[in-house]
Amino acid sequence: MDTATTVLDLVGVFLNALLGGTVARRDRLDLFGFLVIGIASGLGGGLIRDVLLQHGPPAALTDPAYIPTALAGTGVAFLLDISPPDWSRAFKFLDAAALSVWASVGAQKTMGVGLGRLPAILLGTITAVGGGAIRDLLLQRVPAVLQDTRWYASVAVLVAAVEVLGIATGFPVAGTVAAITLGVLLRIVAEWRG
Amino acid sequence: MDTATTVLDLVGVFLNALLGGTVARRDRLDLFGFLVIGIASGLGGGLIRDVLLQHGPPAALTDPAYIPTALAGTGVAFLLDISPPDWSRAFKFLDAAALSVWASVGAQKTMGVGLGRLPAILLGTITAVGGGAIRDLLLQRVPAVLQDTRWYASVAVLVAAVEVLGIATGFPVAGTVAAITLGVLLRIVAEWRG
Amino acid sequence: MDTATTVLDLVGVFLNALLGGTVARRDRLDLFGFLVIGIASGLGGGLIRDVLLQHGPPAALTDPAYIPTALAGTGVAFLLDISPPDWSRAFKFLDAAALSVWASVGAQKTMGVGLGRLPAILLGTITAVGGGAIRDLLLQRVPAVLQDTRWYASVAVLVAAVEVLGIATGFPVAGTVAAITLGVLLRIVAEWRG
Repeated sequence: MDTATTVLDLVGVFLNALLGGTVARRDRLDLFGFLVIGIASGLGGGLIRDVLLQHGPPAALTDPAYIPTALAGTGVAFLLDISPPDWSRAFKFLDAAALSVWASVGAQKTMGVGLGRLPAILLGTITAVGGGAIRDLLLQRVPAVLQDTRWYASVAVLVAAVEVLGIATGFPVAGTVAAITLGVLLRIVAEWRG
Repeated sequence: MDTATTVLDLVGVFLNALLGGTVARRDRLDLFGFLVIGIASGLGGGLIRDVLLQHGPPAALTDPAYIPTALAGTGVAFLLDISPPDWSRAFKFLDAAALSVWASVGAQKTMGVGLGRLPAILLGTITAVGGGAIRDLLLQRVPAVLQDTRWYASVAVLVAAVEVLGIATGFPVAGTVAAITLGVLLRIVAEWRG
Repeated sequence: MDTATTVLDLVGVFLNALLGGTVARRDRLDLFGFLVIGIASGLGGGLIRDVLLQHGPPAALTDPAYIPTALAGTGVAFLLDISPPDWSRAFKFLDAAALSVWASVGAQKTMGVGLGRLPAILLGTITAVGGGAIRDLLLQRVPAVLQDTRWYASVAVLVAAVEVLGIATGFPVAGTVAAITLGVLLRIVAEWRG
């Protein structure tokens, strides 16, 4: 991954750990509960992807930036009472960018180890929504992806598909830019209509 | 795996994705929910097995037939209102065959990478019932294997054990035939007594 | 792992399978349910750790002592009605030792394959509490680690951190002894304060 992708990937980790922390607060968990939910939300999707790819230990364990970033997001949510309704437009924009980057990175990595297009779309989507699904399971909720009313998972599938199309047609950079742009726009439309 | 085994393995993927879809319908999930439950039901057991074996990416990701087969089973269940009580005898026979093939294939693969007999029985069973357990967890049900009233998981253990016995005594082909035949017969008896 | 560590590791498997069995009894599961819960409780944490480390099949599958030990613990809990309130002081001491050994072994293994200190603390903790979390998920309970009122998971984090400190400062043996001693003492204090 290049630097811009890594930065956006880590932004996703931070924001999803923060979001996990707001859910932990709603459920009145203690500090340990915050940490479990924050780490699962921020790192879970990438961990599942890397375990399925079977190409060495997950990036979340080998790159020293990931765990601290997840802990930082969780820590902010533990110290400050941030709740989703308060989220500013900037926040929603970053959240949309993170979802799109995760779906795009997951698809890229999958094709990068020589797997096909459908597995790339599948693992791109899992990267983007897997952490939230683990969080929901731990908190005994039916995972949000099963009733995709907020079009979160559907956008992840589309982003991963555009990314795969870009790689398959020989335009990986343009594909990534198009995939992430499309993802952010669709998320903004979904929130606006929501 | 030889061709006959692969075909039966894929029949299992199709049928379990279809079965997952009928459960998704009962829970009134949307299309995305159908896809998640169908893929988890059809591919989940093999994914867990291959992740535990640590011998390269899961067959469900490397063999291009698996994801489309799971999607096809899910798609049929989304389009047609098939419910388990309607299942014909042919359907139940195929279901029994798939369970037995999955348990047999899981045990074979485990011994094939040099692991022992108990791990082979364990992973054969996980292959056969793991997808259903993930489906139940996602849908917030206590997994059916914990109260094996329908003798599903018990039959999987027996099939895997007979498969292991065949390999250990030097009669792998006879063992597989015996294991799958036994599994189908026991499932039919269990349904008939049910 | 040296012999003493392996023995304590297996003591942990036996005790946690036994503990899983007592939970299975409370939920009136059948024999198969006992086996699933006992194996998940006894082997689950180590399985998650080894799958994340991506260094060959999990020890629970390659070392022939693990599955039988988990089955033995489950079998005792199935045959005898042991309930946690009856547990003697010796039992609680062994339980505290097993938690500490699991956290220490998990951290050791992680650093042993070249990963860093934070991943080592994370995987040490997952080794120690992961099996119980899987058990809780299967039984549709909110995992105990999310409300760490009994200070189980917090002690695991501390034990793993002391273990990492010992390795990082060049005193691995002293670190392990200190980590496990601290873990046992803290568990005893936590139980005593109740």
